[in-house]
Amino acid sequence: MATNHERPFDLLNKSIGQQVLIRLKNGVDLRGKVQSFDVHMNIVLENCEELGEDGGIKTKLGVILLRGGNILFISPA
Amino acid sequence: MATNHERPFDLLNKSIGQQVLIRLKNGVDLRGKVQSFDVHMNIVLENCEELGEDGGIKTKLGVILLRGGNILFISPA
Amino acid sequence: MATNHERPFDLLNKSIGQQVLIRLKNGVDLRGKVQSFDVHMNIVLENCEELGEDGGIKTKLGVILLRGGNILFISPA
Amino acid sequence: MATNHERPFDLLNKSIGQQVLIRLKNGVDLRGKVQSFDVHMNIVLENCEELGEDGGIKTKLGVILLRGGNILFISPA
Amino acid sequence: MATNHERPFDLLNKSIGQQVLIRLKNGVDLRGKVQSFDVHMNIVLENCEELGEDGGIKTKLGVILLRGGNILFISPA
Amino acid sequence: MATNHERPFDLLNKSIGQQVLIRLKNGVDLRGKVQSFDVHMNIVLENCEELGEDGGIKTKLGVILLRGGNILFISPA
Amino acid sequence: MATNHERPFDLLNKSIGQQVLIRLKNGVDLRGKVQSFDVHMNIVLENCEELGEDGGIKTKLGVILLRGGNILFISPA
Repeated sequence: MATNHERPFDLLNKSIGQQVLIRLKNGVDLRGKVQSFDVHMNIVLENCEELGEDGGIKTKLGVILLRGGNILFISPA
Repeated sequence: MATNHERPFDLLNKSIGQQVLIRLKNGVDLRGKVQSFDVHMNIVLENCEELGEDGGIKTKLGVILLRGGNILFISPA
Repeated sequence: MATNHERPFDLLNKSIGQQVLIRLKNGVDLRGKVQSFDVHMNIVLENCEELGEDGGIKTKLGVILLRGGNILFISPA
Repeated sequence: MATNHERPFDLLNKSIGQQVLIRLKNGVDLRGKVQSFDVHMNIVLENCEELGEDGGIKTKLGVILLRGGNILFISPA
Repeated sequence: MATNHERPFDLLNKSIGQQVLIRLKNGVDLRGKVQSFDVHMNIVLENCEELGEDGGIKTKLGVILLRGGNILFISPA
Repeated sequence: MATNHERPFDLLNKSIGQQVLIRLKNGVDLRGKVQSFDVHMNIVLENCEELGEDGGIKTKLGVILLRGGNILFISPA
Repeated sequence: MATNHERPFDLLNKSIGQQVLIRLKNGVDLRGKVQSFDVHMNIVLENCEELGEDGGIKTKLGVILLRGGNILFISPA
């Protein structure tokens, strides 16, 4: 249940080793497994895929280090 | 009644566990239940939905961690 | 009368409980009653309305927490 | 005469109670009397007018608190 | 001769009382005499002129306080 | 295996002397060997190439110092 | 050989008195001799030339102080 002791970065912490969907500010959707993150929301994703308009895989990007400033939102996939 | 002891983040604090509408800078409207937030206005929303032009549900996003820098305004829904 | 002891935030402080017009960077005009604000110019507006091109009410938004970074100017309405 | 002891904010300080023209980053020109300012170049203008392409008055805005980040330049009018 | 003891702001300091050309991020060219500047590269220019596409004078702006964040580059004129 | 002791910059550190693909915010793809980086993600790339839409080499840039703020993501190539 | 003791600014330091090519965020290419730089990557270039699409000289700019925030990358020319 929600309490004000939880913080948004707790969600990122629980996502370590899990798949997430990340929507970028430029509208691109990425999917991958969170390996690590830092206070700037810079994130390393494994098996990262860029998704097309239809939600299908457009490009396999492998491991990427994504700069946090480009992120709109992150969602457990 | 308004006093200058209240601060904008008090509204966010009262919204924990409640539904809010969030308008993003890119014009998109999101609706969801506030689970947590931090000083950057990063917010975790549960049962988050992206709304269409007509105010209806366009996409169910589930749980998302939204970066505060993308927010235009937040309103109790 | 103008003195260099006054500061811009004094105008916001005097606007608590009063109606203001806020023009956003994206060109949208909002009107509402100031409930609270902080040093980032984040503002809570009550009975907030989005105005149309003709100055009439376009949408009733109710209570909103507006992020200060989106503001162009604020004017007592 | 110019000395390197003067600083740009001295011009703003001398403009208190005087009319200035302010060109915004979005190309809009505002004219008004400086009532106060702060270190972020947030400025309160009295009798503020938005000018049209021809330099004539387009809209009377009255008193406004302008966020400094929107300013391109300020000029004594 | 260049040494790594010189710093970019030394050029601005030597430009006090001298004419410079300033190209803005929005593509506009300004020409004027530097009266003062600060660490944010905010600059007061005297006899400032906005130049047209052909390098001729488009508008006489007089004295202006230019916010440094709008500058692309500054060049002794 | 992922642990929360790893941090995104560890990936950059392991990339020293290795080839990476860097996607810029403006959509351009660069490929080169990482020589050094700093906390702002400013990166020196050796044998850097700008890639075309088809993934082929468009321009050979040689050694470049790339400002970190322009980066969308970095991927071991 | 690459070691993690080198830092990106070392490349700038070695470029003092040397010609560099600088690509700006707005797509413009500048070429000139580095006279000085600071921690913000503000750079003074001597004999600076703006290059055209074909890599030829479009405009001779002389000495310029370029604000670092406009830079995409810097390359020894």
